[in-house]
Amino acid sequence: MDISNELAIGIDIGGTNTKYGIVNHRGEILQQGELRTDKYAKVESFIDALYKTLQPVIKSVKRSNIQGIGIGAPNGNYYSGTIEYAPNLKWKGIIPIAKMMSDKFDLPAALTNDANAAAVGEMTYGAARGMKDFIMITLGTGVGSGIVANGQLILGHDGFAGELGHTIVIPGGRLHTGTGMRGSLEVYASATGVAKTAIELLEKNPDKTSLLRSSSEAEINSKFVYECAMKNDKLAKKVYEYTGKILGQALANFVMFSSPEAIILFGGLTKAGDMIMKPTREHMEKNLLPIFQNKVKLIFSELKESDAAILGASALVWDMRSEPINASI
Amino acid sequence: MDISNELAIGIDIGGTNTKYGIVNHRGEILQQGELRTDKYAKVESFIDALYKTLQPVIKSVKRSNIQGIGIGAPNGNYYSGTIEYAPNLKWKGIIPIAKMMSDKFDLPAALTNDANAAAVGEMTYGAARGMKDFIMITLGTGVGSGIVANGQLILGHDGFAGELGHTIVIPGGRLHTGTGMRGSLEVYASATGVAKTAIELLEKNPDKTSLLRSSSEAEINSKFVYECAMKNDKLAKKVYEYTGKILGQALANFVMFSSPEAIILFGGLTKAGDMIMKPTREHMEKNLLPIFQNKVKLIFSELKESDAAILGASALVWDMRSEPINASI
Repeated sequence: MDISNELAIGIDIGGTNTKYGIVNHRGEILQQGELRTDKYAKVESFIDALYKTLQPVIKSVKRSNIQGIGIGAPNGNYYSGTIEYAPNLKWKGIIPIAKMMSDKFDLPAALTNDANAAAVGEMTYGAARGMKDFIMITLGTGVGSGIVANGQLILGHDGFAGELGHTIVIPGGRLHTGTGMRGSLEVYASATGVAKTAIELLEKNPDKTSLLRSSSEAEINSKFVYECAMKNDKLAKKVYEYTGKILGQALANFVMFSSPEAIILFGGLTKAGDMIMKPTREHMEKNLLPIFQNKVKLIFSELKESDAAILGASALVWDMRSEPINASI
Repeated sequence: MDISNELAIGIDIGGTNTKYGIVNHRGEILQQGELRTDKYAKVESFIDALYKTLQPVIKSVKRSNIQGIGIGAPNGNYYSGTIEYAPNLKWKGIIPIAKMMSDKFDLPAALTNDANAAAVGEMTYGAARGMKDFIMITLGTGVGSGIVANGQLILGHDGFAGELGHTIVIPGGRLHTGTGMRGSLEVYASATGVAKTAIELLEKNPDKTSLLRSSSEAEINSKFVYECAMKNDKLAKKVYEYTGKILGQALANFVMFSSPEAIILFGGLTKAGDMIMKPTREHMEKNLLPIFQNKVKLIFSELKESDAAILGASALVWDMRSEPINASI
């Protein structure tokens, strides 16, 4: 079969919405759409609804061209094909979603978590094409990561590797109310972290005027900090400097672990562009051993944020390993 | 050829001495010996001397059974087969040692750094047999590491991955005089780090009696701290508690990176046994996300310390990749 005709279904399951798309090898999304995830209390009904929704979409392309289904989901485990205790989903416990999808659609299915899917997407269609060693950092509501070494995803013994957002950057630092841990990267370099830093800076500098003060503390969010910074507000820009400092320190440690060719930043925070990139790069370099300095490409993702999750999930299909490692393949 | 007859030469190049051995697949060292490294200002004369020394050894086994030479050396780069700017060796700059050895001995040769060799040795003959994901931490004069994921050494883009001793555990912490960096793991969890911790604790507790005070500060070393701790000295035992605390914090971050089946500790500091193991485990677990807790085996190396370097180097030979990736193979 001509590889250029091959298609993959990419499905990105989020707490609220599930996005799907049919993707070719060039990373073009031929068809796409979405349905609500949170409408379905049972995973079985969700899969039935998804199946029905996808039927006309599948019919619009040649069914036999579809090679498989790739799924990105919170707490998705590649090895077992199961979603395990995902806090943002209504389906509790361990959900064998890859097998269930595979049975329903009669297609091979592969699953991984969202950040790993993003990394595979970037390697297949984006900034990491041709790279064998890179780290993807997703800076959104939380901080996620996907690590590729020797051309393969680092999944770890149990499939849960790459939780870099939860590594401790500042022992005894800021409390992460979700995990109860102190000083983890996520509590600084996420959207919530940016808002917290803004509030801290306002409190530490009561004498300084700032556009940030035009909002109540409770209403400060990362979007507002961004808007203030774009209006050249000094304190708002300091928020990004501080965020970049912590992120850069963390990245330096990651570099000394796997010595990647590139670190690719993805997600909401990257909209800040150089405001976040410059301090991040500066503090990463500052904390590296000389043999690692000025070597690592620190770049933004090349995938459109709205498409990235579908693309990443679809790329799992091209990447399905020759040896089946979960029951559904 | 019967694989059970196959032999490998393992060579461990250190700043002062070079050890060599002829090893079979079961990890038995059939012949071994050593020569001075620092006697040879030029690497060519060193290789000539090594060649002469090894001739009778090679003749005592069947030459045709020898499959290759594995070399462990400081700053050894697997990809290029070169030793690069090793501070402890007299040979400056970039030394293409794998190619030089291969040419001289007319055998394929592979090179890596000491800690990576230790990891390969542990995987081949030791505590990591059958494991595909583990981290080897060497706690000696310095802190080294070898990382295995998906059954392969993580070498990184440039071959220098796995410098976990230089990751920052305490930003702004103790100064590492060798690297100029503050708060890296090595400045706490190495032999020098243990001595420094002892001195700090003595100074912070001027009112407390301790066997450690029977030595001048300048003479306190990790061996002395160990001896005092074995005599049940409270302050000396606190030194290990503190060392284990910092090490445990660092290990937690490593686990959230690659989610290994095991972390294997190796080197001088492991002689302290439970004194170091208990606090290390406690603080590792304490700093892990729940999904990683009580999963990672924290164990000591199973290789005899005096043999480990030769075994590790020899194991590179069995592991020589099918695709030659450096010129000499």
